[in-house]
Amino acid sequence: MTDFAATKAMFHLPDDATYLDGNSLGPLPKAAPKRLARTMQDEWGEMLITGWNKAGWMGMPTEIGDRIGKLIGAEPGHVVLGDTLSIKVYQALASALEMNPKRRVILSDNGNFPSDLYMAEGLCKTLGSDFELRTVKPEDVENSLSSDVAVLMLTEVDYRTGRLHDMNALTAEAQAHGIITVWDLAHSAGALPVDVAGANADFAVGCTYKYLNSGPGGPAFIYVAPRHVNKVRPALSGWLGHEAPFEFDLSYRPGSGIERMRVGTPPILQLAALEAAMDVWDSANIHDVRAQSIKLCDQFIAGVEASCPELTLASPRDGTARGSQVSFRFENGYAAMQALIVRGVIGDFRAPDIMRFGFTPLYIDEADVARAVDVLTDVTMNRLWDTPEYKMRARVT
Amino acid sequence: MTDFAATKAMFHLPDDATYLDGNSLGPLPKAAPKRLARTMQDEWGEMLITGWNKAGWMGMPTEIGDRIGKLIGAEPGHVVLGDTLSIKVYQALASALEMNPKRRVILSDNGNFPSDLYMAEGLCKTLGSDFELRTVKPEDVENSLSSDVAVLMLTEVDYRTGRLHDMNALTAEAQAHGIITVWDLAHSAGALPVDVAGANADFAVGCTYKYLNSGPGGPAFIYVAPRHVNKVRPALSGWLGHEAPFEFDLSYRPGSGIERMRVGTPPILQLAALEAAMDVWDSANIHDVRAQSIKLCDQFIAGVEASCPELTLASPRDGTARGSQVSFRFENGYAAMQALIVRGVIGDFRAPDIMRFGFTPLYIDEADVARAVDVLTDVTMNRLWDTPEYKMRARVT
Repeated sequence: MTDFAATKAMFHLPDDATYLDGNSLGPLPKAAPKRLARTMQDEWGEMLITGWNKAGWMGMPTEIGDRIGKLIGAEPGHVVLGDTLSIKVYQALASALEMNPKRRVILSDNGNFPSDLYMAEGLCKTLGSDFELRTVKPEDVENSLSSDVAVLMLTEVDYRTGRLHDMNALTAEAQAHGIITVWDLAHSAGALPVDVAGANADFAVGCTYKYLNSGPGGPAFIYVAPRHVNKVRPALSGWLGHEAPFEFDLSYRPGSGIERMRVGTPPILQLAALEAAMDVWDSANIHDVRAQSIKLCDQFIAGVEASCPELTLASPRDGTARGSQVSFRFENGYAAMQALIVRGVIGDFRAPDIMRFGFTPLYIDEADVARAVDVLTDVTMNRLWDTPEYKMRARVT
Repeated sequence: MTDFAATKAMFHLPDDATYLDGNSLGPLPKAAPKRLARTMQDEWGEMLITGWNKAGWMGMPTEIGDRIGKLIGAEPGHVVLGDTLSIKVYQALASALEMNPKRRVILSDNGNFPSDLYMAEGLCKTLGSDFELRTVKPEDVENSLSSDVAVLMLTEVDYRTGRLHDMNALTAEAQAHGIITVWDLAHSAGALPVDVAGANADFAVGCTYKYLNSGPGGPAFIYVAPRHVNKVRPALSGWLGHEAPFEFDLSYRPGSGIERMRVGTPPILQLAALEAAMDVWDSANIHDVRAQSIKLCDQFIAGVEASCPELTLASPRDGTARGSQVSFRFENGYAAMQALIVRGVIGDFRAPDIMRFGFTPLYIDEADVARAVDVLTDVTMNRLWDTPEYKMRARVT
């Protein structure tokens, strides 16, 4: 059993803050500043250019990729880090579309994170007017798996409500219709057990700055199934995805396996922070994290529903149908969230009326949840949100 | 006049090292570790998610972009940081091709950095079989500006020899043929004065980890000319390039101006290191840097030619036709470079036979050049490179 008091001690949390926004940006792992100081002073400072080999910089994208791979059920050697999630979405979609050359439609849902939809829209425009991004309601995805769909692109956990898609079932159904799947695990990796190999997913992508705590702008990851990886053409064919980057050939030859999904020079400082953050997982089991997360979310829902009658649950009530967050609808949600933040309970707001709270057992415990319920009750029952300042902020943001 | 002893004191350089590879990876600015510690502890650690506004993270890509813009002659508000140079090349090319919809050819030269060519090749494959990347010899570019060329993509400074393209003349000639220009300033920005506005360049891109000293994997930059920026379609249409990212619309609307060339979440730790590195430019003038760089390069050429008869100059002899590096051809160049590095003179090697030395007046002075000449003389005249170990390394790399 994971010792969550021990993992909580591995994070720096500001005094008097209850941080329920780790699903936007995870907190600082205490080991990260020292790791960065070492990377800068002992590696960059002393080794200079030789750090690429001597300090192992060149291997970090796949080595840390494998550590993330364990959390998402990937086969070893099939996850690589780099770029941003938006870029990784583009890479996956471009490769996936080429694997299904007779079809022209990317299917997604309107609960997907907008950047995924934007990247798909941009790619379709680049490819030509016969390509189409088709978005349906989340509950209509299954019935929309038609024979003109080339790629199904879904985010497993809805960023607003926390609703979970059934990755196993939808992947199987999509594949039965000849559709390639691209799964965005932004709100899954490190939050709940994922099994990309077991689900037979084709591509998966995700970010590291939420539940993997890599810090602002940490790199993204991409997974390509072993059956595809040596066949896919990297549309973003950068030199570090080349079979032999240091031969400086004039023509591109894709590297072996997942290496071909590398593009440019990897962000070593961000990777060093991520590496420190991944050490936390040496003391944590993702199944324990999931069980405890459901407990904390259930505790929060019960507390809020008992004492904040104006708020309506926007997340699935069944913990197994939910990611690691709870959302409530409240028409004064923006102002209320400002009032909460001022009182040290940090969640976030998603338009038009969603108050969103992430629960990360690695550093959030029952006492934090109880405190969040108390402050939220105070803010809503005593209309502490109803100040000109908070409402003005709501207008300008 | 820039005080180069003062700027040299702003960098950490290992004892007994003469670092002539800042054109691959610039050294550590002494202020960077403290800046990173602050970003991690005081911003990420204490402000958590609110750092995006409170610590100004969201504005860093354009604010630091403007500081780079001054060095490359860009109009304020027309440079933004993010991603890697390969990605920025792709962005520029994709937009540029769409601006010239009746043409299908990207023209470049075979002295361009391979990743630029690979990205162009990948984009052409994505766009369809009628698109072509045409590469000619650097000296044949001018005569290859034909009416089927949509985009001219060149790197101003050849990464092997340091040969400079004439940016003003080639841009004007290309535009006279209806061709859009994309300039890669990887070996220019921070090395020599560039004037993208004066040259009337359409797009420019570059990296920050060479002459701008941002550290391994620092972000890239992109410039789009004011006359184009509100018309270009961003092919990589990520949410932070959206007109209103936090409205979470389902459809993409490009942001105003250069903001639309942002894609995903910016790498704040790398940007913080870059910010510290840019402070050096408060004490340095790029014209002084250029004049001193030519002096140092001339000193090196004279010294090597006087005492290393086996080496042949591969760079232009005329300093104004050269970037901030000097290359020599030597058939045992790989082994010789190993021998040099062991003796603390750090340059690099580019196949098949090029020994490359970068000269950066910000932290390299006349005494460093004299020492490099002495060690290179010792290594070549006394055949110190001729050991089984160095030659073996040459075979396996």
